[in-house]
Amino acid sequence: MDRKELEKMIINRLNNLTKPVGSLGELERIALKIGLIQQKVIPELFKDKRIYVFAADHGVTECSISAYPREVTKQMVFNFLNGGAAINVFAKHVGAKVFVVDAGVDADFEDHPFLIKRKVGYATKNIAFGPAMSKEEAVKCIQYGREIARSAILQGADLLVVGDMGIGNTTIAAAIAAAFGFDVDEVVDIGTPIDQKTLERKKQVVRQALEVNKPDRKDAIDVLSKVGGFCIGQMVGFILEACENRCPVVVDGFPTTAALLIAYEMNKNILDFVFAGHKSKVKGHEVMLKYLGLRPILDLEMRLGEGTGAALAISIIEAAIKMISQMATFESAGVSKGSDQT
Amino acid sequence: MDRKELEKMIINRLNNLTKPVGSLGELERIALKIGLIQQKVIPELFKDKRIYVFAADHGVTECSISAYPREVTKQMVFNFLNGGAAINVFAKHVGAKVFVVDAGVDADFEDHPFLIKRKVGYATKNIAFGPAMSKEEAVKCIQYGREIARSAILQGADLLVVGDMGIGNTTIAAAIAAAFGFDVDEVVDIGTPIDQKTLERKKQVVRQALEVNKPDRKDAIDVLSKVGGFCIGQMVGFILEACENRCPVVVDGFPTTAALLIAYEMNKNILDFVFAGHKSKVKGHEVMLKYLGLRPILDLEMRLGEGTGAALAISIIEAAIKMISQMATFESAGVSKGSDQT
Repeated sequence: MDRKELEKMIINRLNNLTKPVGSLGELERIALKIGLIQQKVIPELFKDKRIYVFAADHGVTECSISAYPREVTKQMVFNFLNGGAAINVFAKHVGAKVFVVDAGVDADFEDHPFLIKRKVGYATKNIAFGPAMSKEEAVKCIQYGREIARSAILQGADLLVVGDMGIGNTTIAAAIAAAFGFDVDEVVDIGTPIDQKTLERKKQVVRQALEVNKPDRKDAIDVLSKVGGFCIGQMVGFILEACENRCPVVVDGFPTTAALLIAYEMNKNILDFVFAGHKSKVKGHEVMLKYLGLRPILDLEMRLGEGTGAALAISIIEAAIKMISQMATFESAGVSKGSDQT
Repeated sequence: MDRKELEKMIINRLNNLTKPVGSLGELERIALKIGLIQQKVIPELFKDKRIYVFAADHGVTECSISAYPREVTKQMVFNFLNGGAAINVFAKHVGAKVFVVDAGVDADFEDHPFLIKRKVGYATKNIAFGPAMSKEEAVKCIQYGREIARSAILQGADLLVVGDMGIGNTTIAAAIAAAFGFDVDEVVDIGTPIDQKTLERKKQVVRQALEVNKPDRKDAIDVLSKVGGFCIGQMVGFILEACENRCPVVVDGFPTTAALLIAYEMNKNILDFVFAGHKSKVKGHEVMLKYLGLRPILDLEMRLGEGTGAALAISIIEAAIKMISQMATFESAGVSKGSDQT
């Protein structure tokens, strides 16, 4: 069916549900977007919701820009696999499964049914002194990410959430944002709780990374390889593949949205398939979301990552689907239309 | 246990969960609030969540301040009882039951297991020309509302949502806000979609209601009887009784928060038990929430009422409870603490 025609039919149904026109605000926009993605006036509920947490270490942690030591990345991978992290709790709450991707953690892991091993290295190099990775590694990251999404969709996944874990990842995300022209002061913020002195060092590290590497903002692979991360690169591929296969993707906070930014530079058509799960308290996140024109579903002053904000947003997205599929219409309920409806 | 002691214990547990201190933002504040209400470090999940939609008609609809005719109140009561309204869909989504209270609808209803008949009249009088109701009726409303909450709690309800339905109710809510000193221009907005001319008339009606009735802001019953509504009055009693029995209450949009405002004037201690489910798009709502110091859990640009925003917020409140009860601690997961934790 023609997209314009479908859009008209969905809006017509939304306007005929027993409520004033537009009064369910963001939920109506979500229902419309899901309908356009699924190409149905009444979208189907998700049958296989999956959260992929991309974990990797970053050479930039040498510059002491986090409140946590690097080994926390590895420890949190164990925590995810043991079901004790926030993302496990929230995933269960919304009926989603959690997969962990080792994109480049500085540790080796035993096999585990929910661990996907796609290690590109044991951590990137320190962006303050040179490129994070080679161009070949950047391309490999994207390819791995694409394979993970393709495999998920083939297995039946119909909603994908992108989460991230990696000490140092908000520094990397800020460097990516800065590489695309955002002001360093606007995108560098505390990720984990650090003091003012550390925050200033973090800004300095980002500035230095740009000076040393001179990433070319017209070349997404150049940005990724110079100031990105293995987790970021795999998320770029994951997002691209999901969207190109018309599978809705929910991004989480600052690092996942930095990956979206790179993906968007590679394919401007993907945003029709992307939801911003929440607005992180990390201030650079809002700046990026505005640039991308995405309205965050939730704003709970969270700044944890792991996909936690996106996971909680699933409940709202599902409520929107149920609204358009289960609510009565004015006709079916015998309710008088208002002066706004003719 | 001493409140300060309990608070310290809850915060201690929150800070020992495997996440940076404070990184789950609003969810941590919700978990703390629920813990203080239940007087437990690890709160229990709700076993009986109930939404009460208070429906009534308002004499002020004579002034043509809504996009809908008065009979829509009655028609929507049928829609609620038949399960076709937005609140039914969202209640089912979050596992809550919907009860409808006929506080003063301009119609008679057959018995129904989820309809609570507490009619005080077939509509209030028009506030533009005199008081909405007598003082005796105002007191009766509060008593009925208290009885409904008491009965719900006795039956096992452990989370109560307040919703409202009634053509004209945002005009009444605005008049209440104005009676308490808020600027008419700041609290009168479109409820249902009306044009600019109707909006101006709505403001004029609110101004006239204040001039004619001169409600005494120091006397909550005076405000309620002069510019309130039967639904508002019952919600006032419902909120007071729930809070005084330590049962958490989630308020919804503008009219339910106007009821909370009156309840708060009668008992300043209730806010420890109240959650603001969402921020309505009706602009006066945010003004009131700020005055009450309540941060809305959701902001989805909704302006429907019925308890819809509050119902959706239940998913977030429950996620907060699961977070504090199910997440691993640094010790249990073997994760290193950061420099923010000692």
